[in-house]
Amino acid sequence: MTTPSIPPAIAARLIEIDDADDPRVADYADIRERDRIGGGGFIAEGTVVLDHLLTSERFRPTSLFVLKARVAGLEPRLARVPDDVPIFVTERHVMDDVAGFAIHRGVLAHGIDRGHPDRADTADPGLAGFLDATVASAGPLVVAIGLANHDNVGAIFRNAAAFGAAGVILDATSCHPLYRKAIRVSVGTALTLPWHHGADLATIIAALEAAGRHLAALSPQGESGISALLQRGKLALLLGSEGTGLPEDVLSRCETVRIAMAPGIDSLNVATSAAIVLSRLYSAA
Amino acid sequence: MTTPSIPPAIAARLIEIDDADDPRVADYADIRERDRIGGGGFIAEGTVVLDHLLTSERFRPTSLFVLKARVAGLEPRLARVPDDVPIFVTERHVMDDVAGFAIHRGVLAHGIDRGHPDRADTADPGLAGFLDATVASAGPLVVAIGLANHDNVGAIFRNAAAFGAAGVILDATSCHPLYRKAIRVSVGTALTLPWHHGADLATIIAALEAAGRHLAALSPQGESGISALLQRGKLALLLGSEGTGLPEDVLSRCETVRIAMAPGIDSLNVATSAAIVLSRLYSAA
Repeated sequence: MTTPSIPPAIAARLIEIDDADDPRVADYADIRERDRIGGGGFIAEGTVVLDHLLTSERFRPTSLFVLKARVAGLEPRLARVPDDVPIFVTERHVMDDVAGFAIHRGVLAHGIDRGHPDRADTADPGLAGFLDATVASAGPLVVAIGLANHDNVGAIFRNAAAFGAAGVILDATSCHPLYRKAIRVSVGTALTLPWHHGADLATIIAALEAAGRHLAALSPQGESGISALLQRGKLALLLGSEGTGLPEDVLSRCETVRIAMAPGIDSLNVATSAAIVLSRLYSAA
Repeated sequence: MTTPSIPPAIAARLIEIDDADDPRVADYADIRERDRIGGGGFIAEGTVVLDHLLTSERFRPTSLFVLKARVAGLEPRLARVPDDVPIFVTERHVMDDVAGFAIHRGVLAHGIDRGHPDRADTADPGLAGFLDATVASAGPLVVAIGLANHDNVGAIFRNAAAFGAAGVILDATSCHPLYRKAIRVSVGTALTLPWHHGADLATIIAALEAAGRHLAALSPQGESGISALLQRGKLALLLGSEGTGLPEDVLSRCETVRIAMAPGIDSLNVATSAAIVLSRLYSAA
């Protein structure tokens, strides 16, 4: 068996880590126990997520942490890593010791917000600025309210990206999109699809109305079928939690939309519901 | 605070367990480590799954294992539990010790196949018998090939049930639908929607063709759009794994179908893809 050769320009950049307590990889310590990294950074896992991080306009890597055995196979990704970003390499037992659990993929990166390196969860440029920035996109905005489950938030990003959504707004009670598991389930789209997190529900509704978005809310008791949405202007699609749904005072300001389902079945997963509606909108556009 | 009263007929049936090693609850031992229970039984978690187990034609409970604090709130479910099914009750620390992890819902049941109490994974009545039994249903058959992920299999059941599928066929390399997590993610529909698990791919394709099903396969490179399927007869919708997809020789015998997606996005979750297609078929029926 021959080992694939590593180009000299890459090989010269690799920094070997042989001690799990090495402070240079402190950003990767105990990541299973920490949903987010101190100082606003986040952890990207796997090659597909890394690709999104390397092409993101909003975020950038501060370092990579990769198994030695994966390096040769990571070409040409590593060649696209900016020169000032260190590439740490190690053996599997050291990486697992640092992270606190088995990192099957063997590829990690630590990232930050380019504009706000200390706080990736900043509300700047503000919700109004976010709406201005997404107004040129023809796609709908997806609005998550009270969605605390990391898998659901990640899946909503994946589905929103698949069907050309303009972006995602998450209220303050929703899971942050830069949680490790949310990024992973989003398949990296949380790093490339525009989003805003942290406003309260009333602020979000007022801003969407001011921006002229047609408010549509998914609800098992919705009055409209999906096809009614195909006739509307620029949409904001509101999603509430599977348990409690959206508050009545919010529903009363929205066109409520139901997904036709077999008798006796009362709900779908929220990200799946979003996918069904977004797919119909995308196919009709 | 008043404690809700428990009807005497229920109270008389409750069997208290105060020792985690009590052999009467051996079916619940270490369920986290055991995907399935010896002898073909399975574990149902939570009230919604219990409801499916209590109404299932194919499966029935052999016992319930419930936190004392949950008993009063489980009326009228407990009244529907057959008289010969013991209802074990306990405190949280005993239940968690038995199960090997924290059972947040506090409601467990052990179930078996009525027709095959020793082996829930039996292939009887055979694939041909299964196809005969589902032929009267107007809904499509969902066919899972090589889907080893428990969450995906559970989600496929949830979505198939939501959109009136006739049943689910899973090949031998797919996760068994009675795995604990698959049942939970299916929200209990794995206990009520007809399914067949365990045949090999060639047998499945031949049986579907013999039964006159129109074979449609989801594929990112599919030739047809979803709307083409609305004109077909009785459908079998084939789903392959996200990683490897379906083999070429199978695709060549199917109408291949793609879901329109934004440029640069190459895939959706397999259960989400199924939901999008099944929803369109259901709404058009």
